[in-house]
Amino acid sequence: MKHTFASDNYSGVHPDIMDALNKVNHGHAGSYGADEYTTKAAEKFKQFFGEHVEIFFVYNGTGANVLGLSSLTQSYHAIICSDLSHIHVDESTAPEKFTGCRLMTIPTRDGKIYPDAIEDRIQRIDDQHHPQAKVISISQSTEYGTVYSVNEIAAISAVAKKHGFYFHMDGSRISNAAVSLNRTFKEFTSDVGVDVLSFGGTKNGMMFGEAVIFLTPEVAHNFKYIRKQGMQLHSKMRFISCQFDALLSNERWKKNAVQANTMATLLAEELRKIPQIKITQSVDANGVFAIFPSSIIPALQEEQFFYVWTEKTSEVRLMCSFDTREEEIKSFVKRIKELIA
Amino acid sequence: MKHTFASDNYSGVHPDIMDALNKVNHGHAGSYGADEYTTKAAEKFKQFFGEHVEIFFVYNGTGANVLGLSSLTQSYHAIICSDLSHIHVDESTAPEKFTGCRLMTIPTRDGKIYPDAIEDRIQRIDDQHHPQAKVISISQSTEYGTVYSVNEIAAISAVAKKHGFYFHMDGSRISNAAVSLNRTFKEFTSDVGVDVLSFGGTKNGMMFGEAVIFLTPEVAHNFKYIRKQGMQLHSKMRFISCQFDALLSNERWKKNAVQANTMATLLAEELRKIPQIKITQSVDANGVFAIFPSSIIPALQEEQFFYVWTEKTSEVRLMCSFDTREEEIKSFVKRIKELIA
Amino acid sequence: MKHTFASDNYSGVHPDIMDALNKVNHGHAGSYGADEYTTKAAEKFKQFFGEHVEIFFVYNGTGANVLGLSSLTQSYHAIICSDLSHIHVDESTAPEKFTGCRLMTIPTRDGKIYPDAIEDRIQRIDDQHHPQAKVISISQSTEYGTVYSVNEIAAISAVAKKHGFYFHMDGSRISNAAVSLNRTFKEFTSDVGVDVLSFGGTKNGMMFGEAVIFLTPEVAHNFKYIRKQGMQLHSKMRFISCQFDALLSNERWKKNAVQANTMATLLAEELRKIPQIKITQSVDANGVFAIFPSSIIPALQEEQFFYVWTEKTSEVRLMCSFDTREEEIKSFVKRIKELIA
Amino acid sequence: MKHTFASDNYSGVHPDIMDALNKVNHGHAGSYGADEYTTKAAEKFKQFFGEHVEIFFVYNGTGANVLGLSSLTQSYHAIICSDLSHIHVDESTAPEKFTGCRLMTIPTRDGKIYPDAIEDRIQRIDDQHHPQAKVISISQSTEYGTVYSVNEIAAISAVAKKHGFYFHMDGSRISNAAVSLNRTFKEFTSDVGVDVLSFGGTKNGMMFGEAVIFLTPEVAHNFKYIRKQGMQLHSKMRFISCQFDALLSNERWKKNAVQANTMATLLAEELRKIPQIKITQSVDANGVFAIFPSSIIPALQEEQFFYVWTEKTSEVRLMCSFDTREEEIKSFVKRIKELIA
Repeated sequence: MKHTFASDNYSGVHPDIMDALNKVNHGHAGSYGADEYTTKAAEKFKQFFGEHVEIFFVYNGTGANVLGLSSLTQSYHAIICSDLSHIHVDESTAPEKFTGCRLMTIPTRDGKIYPDAIEDRIQRIDDQHHPQAKVISISQSTEYGTVYSVNEIAAISAVAKKHGFYFHMDGSRISNAAVSLNRTFKEFTSDVGVDVLSFGGTKNGMMFGEAVIFLTPEVAHNFKYIRKQGMQLHSKMRFISCQFDALLSNERWKKNAVQANTMATLLAEELRKIPQIKITQSVDANGVFAIFPSSIIPALQEEQFFYVWTEKTSEVRLMCSFDTREEEIKSFVKRIKELIA
Repeated sequence: MKHTFASDNYSGVHPDIMDALNKVNHGHAGSYGADEYTTKAAEKFKQFFGEHVEIFFVYNGTGANVLGLSSLTQSYHAIICSDLSHIHVDESTAPEKFTGCRLMTIPTRDGKIYPDAIEDRIQRIDDQHHPQAKVISISQSTEYGTVYSVNEIAAISAVAKKHGFYFHMDGSRISNAAVSLNRTFKEFTSDVGVDVLSFGGTKNGMMFGEAVIFLTPEVAHNFKYIRKQGMQLHSKMRFISCQFDALLSNERWKKNAVQANTMATLLAEELRKIPQIKITQSVDANGVFAIFPSSIIPALQEEQFFYVWTEKTSEVRLMCSFDTREEEIKSFVKRIKELIA
Repeated sequence: MKHTFASDNYSGVHPDIMDALNKVNHGHAGSYGADEYTTKAAEKFKQFFGEHVEIFFVYNGTGANVLGLSSLTQSYHAIICSDLSHIHVDESTAPEKFTGCRLMTIPTRDGKIYPDAIEDRIQRIDDQHHPQAKVISISQSTEYGTVYSVNEIAAISAVAKKHGFYFHMDGSRISNAAVSLNRTFKEFTSDVGVDVLSFGGTKNGMMFGEAVIFLTPEVAHNFKYIRKQGMQLHSKMRFISCQFDALLSNERWKKNAVQANTMATLLAEELRKIPQIKITQSVDANGVFAIFPSSIIPALQEEQFFYVWTEKTSEVRLMCSFDTREEEIKSFVKRIKELIA
Repeated sequence: MKHTFASDNYSGVHPDIMDALNKVNHGHAGSYGADEYTTKAAEKFKQFFGEHVEIFFVYNGTGANVLGLSSLTQSYHAIICSDLSHIHVDESTAPEKFTGCRLMTIPTRDGKIYPDAIEDRIQRIDDQHHPQAKVISISQSTEYGTVYSVNEIAAISAVAKKHGFYFHMDGSRISNAAVSLNRTFKEFTSDVGVDVLSFGGTKNGMMFGEAVIFLTPEVAHNFKYIRKQGMQLHSKMRFISCQFDALLSNERWKKNAVQANTMATLLAEELRKIPQIKITQSVDANGVFAIFPSSIIPALQEEQFFYVWTEKTSEVRLMCSFDTREEEIKSFVKRIKELIA
């Protein structure tokens, strides 16, 4: 299939990561993570997040989010999140089924949630009849391609700490956020009070695998059981570990994210020049949301596929990936202009 | 790590499958299975099991088993299985957590369960106070390296049909069983009434990925939701699909299983020559169970690692894999003889 | 404790029902519902709802709602309901824990939900990534003391039928609704497409016990297992059954509801005369919602206790019960006037 | 219905308890336990178990057991219990559904489990692949009418403490056990290390209601949420509380249990005189298990109903209750003799 703007999971595997997979494929290795590659990958993560953190590899983002949240909750709890968050709109009822918890949503227009709205949502504390809020979960970057500033995260963290809540971050696109902020991972996660982080691999060039990083390591104490019970423990673990090792080496994570973000910025710039198109969100990371004339969408999707995000308004989502190239932006924009003309 | 007899998941990826992974790694592909590779792999499965079957790819064996069983049950049901079955001893409480069901176990000495014992276990039908048996689940080959004959499976199937139960097979080592029986997959699954099958890939040379095959396709009607909710839906699905395609092409599945089984047979033959060692199970597939003199075990584990299966009796498990070589058998046996002497 | 306006569950047991409890207390009776009293009570229900319905007694309203909904759903489903519904705000996360489902809420100002808003909420049908709406649940009367008209219910039912959804009614105060509408139970439940009904007993003068009425009896096929598993099957069932028999005899259900509703109407009339007080909801059944001057609330609560419903606006809830008497209304209103003066 | 030997839940309500129910039925009372009767009943319990314990009332035995166990476990845990325990054979899959845990059963012939067998069952500690034992649960008296001695309980408790497990007691017939042992409740529960106790009311003369007693009060910290979520929180709580108050007053609990136990002893004595009948269990409490000639069972069941416990061996269960009278024993035994003759 031709390159698309459909999703960063339409991409394949970055060559460096494919190389790593080929290289570890010799001999035997201890299963379920008892192997040298897993130790090495964990060490890599510790270089980024600190020696104290606990790292667990899982298969996918839903697994990382749901199991991470499960480690923070009892079934009578509630998880505060944006109504557009991936855990709310794109993970079926996995959060409810596995944690038993309520998702307590906050409406958002830009993908972010803010302290005031969170405070408003916290109700009936200690009331046995009502779900008890216990975790605040945010996505960084958000599902709308926006990125929380460090201060914004710190402010949410303060709300969490004030109420004795945990703070969870869905970082399926965390590398794109780090590049956008020009900050280290640590500066906008553990330094500002994030307890558990889903660190994304697949959308940034890996074949499969995500990491659950316990920045507050105490809450990790029973996670090995939760992961196994959650059907997310891989037997031939070296094949996840080596990918993370490669991703975190030679700034591969950064280079991939820079490419994706740069292409999104370029795409947005080009689209802004077209009067019939309206960019709807701040283009902070690797996604562009825009209202297109509905008439051009079907033909344009044939050129390079993408998803309509909001049917009613003809808002589309255009995702760039580590493998998006300038020529694709150009041909896409050219085709838009032809179709509009 | 040197080759071991620890587990067939200590092995890496078969070169043919690694090739396939490298080959599909170009361009974009629809995510979550909406890609040509997934269609092609499903077609391959249909060649083996019939046009009517429904195929879903998941990440691992626990996922395949638990979600397959989930599609067959309501939470007040019970699943009849061997007390040594993987779902009972090696999947944490994933079956209970995800299905809500009771595992209703039958004691076994050879890894198999038999119709009489199953009939004895079926109690209190229609009694609201008691878990209601609804599924019989067997492993083929079993966790003890034994293989059910076609007739044995047919006899269990008859019990299932008589009571209106479903019949599930954990086929994490189904290729080893097929080679052992010298039968097609179909002959000992759909032809004898198996409804849902976990078809193993990882232990037979894949990097990751298992398949849930609905031989009774009606019960698959809501499985796509169960898989997603069960956190087992891969985004970059082509990388599971291409592996299955390669495994099912050129009899790769068979060649791998032949190698593993042959090595197990050879190993058993050699061990039988040593009077201090007692083979405890019929060596039907790729595993050898044997009682070793406990004194030699630690030194021998350093030579080539393996697991002690039953501490009390010094029964060990020796698993052969697609990559086990004759020279490893020889050096292992040689070392045993040295240690015993 | 003096009579209050706190809740209809602050009341005791109506004397007719207490008599019934005393009368059945002799000799032995089959347990778990295998007794003549249960048969008789079920027959009574059939006189109201039709011969075809299936009736199950449970302990409480949360049990009735959650288990009724459980019989209609798989865990990947969503239940559409008002954001003020009892299942959403007052049953902890029992719905999520027991059904696995998402509660898909619709904002409401009067406690009711309407077809247009329901239609807007129905999204991403057949999309494996998103919770699949399967049930619409309404409360009759609502948590805000309002009552759906028959036409309003029929219109919601039409939406449910159009999409192949089930239609559930939380009737913890159904008798109050029937009196308000001056309709038979049947006319606003089974006649307009309600599939499963929680029929309330406790709030209308019973000691304990609610009924789950399957108006669409097919969906009841496995409810006996769900009830037992849901810990809602009483052993000495005659003591629930005899209460329902008494409640449904001699129009006791109606007389109790008439008293409660009449008192609420009277209370509202009196409150409307006080300029500093604003009635916020239509007083259709036995509850009055009103904004009180916040300064008078603490002293007034000492006179006759009631709950503040919305802290921010000083909106209070005043519930009348089968045992509320005119003199209590008068003394309460008198006290208000004193406090305001 | 005539008196039976079917079950202690075929009985009605003891007159003292019925009186208590009638007496509290006046005026209003705070709901959900915020009433004076609940405070008073809790105080009564503290007189028996100590000031430090925490008491929660629930509806039934399954609720008490499952929610009590839920407060002690995470979903990857296992609960060690007898294979004949009520939680294993008579509570559907409520334990699995609500706790997620495995029931790890120990075969028993007399209803009891013993330290050696428990130790044997404890396997694979800290192994993420296997359910992790965390609770030992026993029934006192057992489902087979036997009673653990204080020393037997202490010995099991020692196993629990050694492994860091919790110790749970299903005391649905705890009063019968106390009378049998001639010990205070405290002596065979908190004094010997029981952490959580289901204290039975219904089978000893109450209409409905059981108590969960946290003898180790720390583990009660979140039970109010578990109870509500578990659908076991009664609104008109005074009607459970007053029953427990009456049961624990004037030694009503003891007198009822003495009557039931005495009648069982008498019945056993009479049956022992009949050569064709074999008593199969020690008659420690209020149940008699005996093998009857199968030919006499149907006619005898018409005289006074009872249940066949084990079809294959014609073993029957004969339960005595607080309301069993000597004349019923005599007429029953007389009828047996007639039928055998």
